[in-house]
Amino acid sequence: MTVQTPSSDAALTETMLDMGARARAASRALGRLGPDDRTRGLKAIAVAIRAAAPAILAANKQDMDAARKKGLSHAMLDRLALDAARVDGIASGVDAIADLPDPLGRELARWQQPNGLDFARVAVPLGVIGIIYESRPNVTADAGTLCLRSGNAAILRCGSESTHSSHALVDAMRAALEAEGLPADAIQLVGTTDRAAVGQMLSGLDGQVDVIVPRGGRSLVERVQKDARVPVIGHLEGLCHMYVDGAADPQKAVDLVVNAKMRRTGVCGSLETLLIDTAVADTLLPRIASALVDAGCELRGDARARVIVPGMKTATEDDWGTEYLAPILAIALVDGLDGALAHIEHWSSGHTDSIVTEDKDVAERFLARVDSAIVLHNASTQFADGGEFGFGAEIGIATGRIHARGPVGAEQLTIYKYVVRGTGQTRP
Amino acid sequence: MTVQTPSSDAALTETMLDMGARARAASRALGRLGPDDRTRGLKAIAVAIRAAAPAILAANKQDMDAARKKGLSHAMLDRLALDAARVDGIASGVDAIADLPDPLGRELARWQQPNGLDFARVAVPLGVIGIIYESRPNVTADAGTLCLRSGNAAILRCGSESTHSSHALVDAMRAALEAEGLPADAIQLVGTTDRAAVGQMLSGLDGQVDVIVPRGGRSLVERVQKDARVPVIGHLEGLCHMYVDGAADPQKAVDLVVNAKMRRTGVCGSLETLLIDTAVADTLLPRIASALVDAGCELRGDARARVIVPGMKTATEDDWGTEYLAPILAIALVDGLDGALAHIEHWSSGHTDSIVTEDKDVAERFLARVDSAIVLHNASTQFADGGEFGFGAEIGIATGRIHARGPVGAEQLTIYKYVVRGTGQTRP
Repeated sequence: MTVQTPSSDAALTETMLDMGARARAASRALGRLGPDDRTRGLKAIAVAIRAAAPAILAANKQDMDAARKKGLSHAMLDRLALDAARVDGIASGVDAIADLPDPLGRELARWQQPNGLDFARVAVPLGVIGIIYESRPNVTADAGTLCLRSGNAAILRCGSESTHSSHALVDAMRAALEAEGLPADAIQLVGTTDRAAVGQMLSGLDGQVDVIVPRGGRSLVERVQKDARVPVIGHLEGLCHMYVDGAADPQKAVDLVVNAKMRRTGVCGSLETLLIDTAVADTLLPRIASALVDAGCELRGDARARVIVPGMKTATEDDWGTEYLAPILAIALVDGLDGALAHIEHWSSGHTDSIVTEDKDVAERFLARVDSAIVLHNASTQFADGGEFGFGAEIGIATGRIHARGPVGAEQLTIYKYVVRGTGQTRP
Repeated sequence: MTVQTPSSDAALTETMLDMGARARAASRALGRLGPDDRTRGLKAIAVAIRAAAPAILAANKQDMDAARKKGLSHAMLDRLALDAARVDGIASGVDAIADLPDPLGRELARWQQPNGLDFARVAVPLGVIGIIYESRPNVTADAGTLCLRSGNAAILRCGSESTHSSHALVDAMRAALEAEGLPADAIQLVGTTDRAAVGQMLSGLDGQVDVIVPRGGRSLVERVQKDARVPVIGHLEGLCHMYVDGAADPQKAVDLVVNAKMRRTGVCGSLETLLIDTAVADTLLPRIASALVDAGCELRGDARARVIVPGMKTATEDDWGTEYLAPILAIALVDGLDGALAHIEHWSSGHTDSIVTEDKDVAERFLARVDSAIVLHNASTQFADGGEFGFGAEIGIATGRIHARGPVGAEQLTIYKYVVRGTGQTRP
């Protein structure tokens, strides 16, 4: 007699579908809770993460050992590493999310029709959110608790490098929910590093996943956008521009460009292309270039820029379309606002673009015409961050065009329904 | 010497990509217009449609002749048919859209951060919208002009049955835009009935289509949701429920059920399943059943309903999941509110569900717990309509969970960007 064992594919499918069903049940249970229940759960999670720090650090050591063996880069090791202070920082992040105003039940609009019907547009959760992310273990806590704050159940799929750390974090979070009598399945972590599990999530787990949020590099986001059978709130690259106008204050321009490029070069809001008005390039570009070089930045200029600052490398067509995420800046001279708008319309990834000018009219034209998620006047592109917007936390910066653009915080993880109150109205 | 002619596939691709590029250019041009320009364009379109009535009616006669030859059903012929009054109705619909408040540029939120940065969330168009629909020619005008009102360029793909009518309408609309000096490519109609063109639209035309809106039967919407590589604002079926509670006013219950089911049976807001509280079924179900039968409705009941009204057919499991769009109603007895909620949670398509009761607490629990796009108290499900909501017009009723739920009007065809005004702020 032969014993049939399920193929690993079938077993994976079954596990994932079960996860989806449990997430749906948890999402419905969450919907019956009040805001104070969610806050209580979040506060308990913060306490539990602090208490579980030894277990989380031990798990992180396993991840770090494996990562070193795999020869991961220093930057990736740094993203992965936890210490006591970072674990405390993760818990503090959860405390901050607990303190956010509850986004559910908000009345977004209310009006009456002549027939006496009363209409209300009321904020409700999205439902079940699948989050697929890469190495940073803090995303496990950030994403799970941001979903909880907004009444959504989360199915988390971490990068394989952070699997032990993420499991330890999720164990603590789920235990806290359970101890509070709240649905632990509101936060689930995919237990396998099998890449087929991602495919299952993208297929929607038989209708149980409402939205996918990819958080990671371009190849991950592109795979998700290509294969997902459910809606995606995704963020492609941040190919951010700063246009220094002829009417820019010179010192502001220097400070803003250096900050936008060099504060942190690996974030999506970092500057990648500087556009400078020919009207002031002769005097201002040398100052900006010198400050950038002093800060350790490599410059690549177009022909006109290299006439003014001969030392810089040559920018090729590729440079205008490259998100360096590194201390490299492409520089082009443009003929005033219209030249800047034309360059940005062609090359911007629709993430974040900024203008530096003291001319309010020019600034307002830039703000109106540039169709990016975030447009700024006299401010650094590095403000492209949910925390800086006052959202408390974010799950990413959306560069799509539907549902949400820019930082996706608790409020952006909600949608609405219409509540219509009548007194017996029939439709003629 | 052989002359190479492009294969029809390649030619189609080229035509469709060109359409996408022209739509993008038009959408950018629309973005530079003011609200008054869009209003002027809309008013000119209404005038042009009235003026083109003879051409539109002649084109419609071609469609009707072909449809009769194909043996289309009476209902489908009726949807397709135009006469002078219907053309005037289409033009009046455009006038109504012209009179809607312009949804662009609205400041949806505004706040300052402690560092002095000023944040505004401002409504902007979605961009280029691909609309794929079936036989009613009026959708051509409704969808095209609703997109124009909201600053979006529309690529329309009509059903093959209405192709002559739709072309005549679009010719009039584009000529009106051109005469007003506005971008005619804001409204384009796919020139071929080749189904491959739909596939091209779903692929996003090389990034030039931002959103797809399917408007039609289940098979169309399912194909779109399966194949689309761009976001979809779709509407699946309207499997609407009405729960008649033990505390219902009997006469209101009779009137509401009959109206919800029988006012128009072919619309997505028509009632498909009646749930009635066991507490009142003995007395109330016979009254409701008799009124429905008098109105020409076929009834299918569960075992308990058939004990009370023995004449009705037997409802099977299939009936709870069927959108009849016909004078047929499934009826189940439920044990109070909890029974109704359990049935709806299992079977509702998340479109529209209603409760009839004089007990405000029960009503509020129903409104809070039922997670459908539209939930009503003491009102007919047939109010599920953008016009009845006061939206002026709608492109459909969304049953997805992101971006928009319920009627999709001009406001729902917008998204936002963040405009951040500073005075030189750098990020620490």
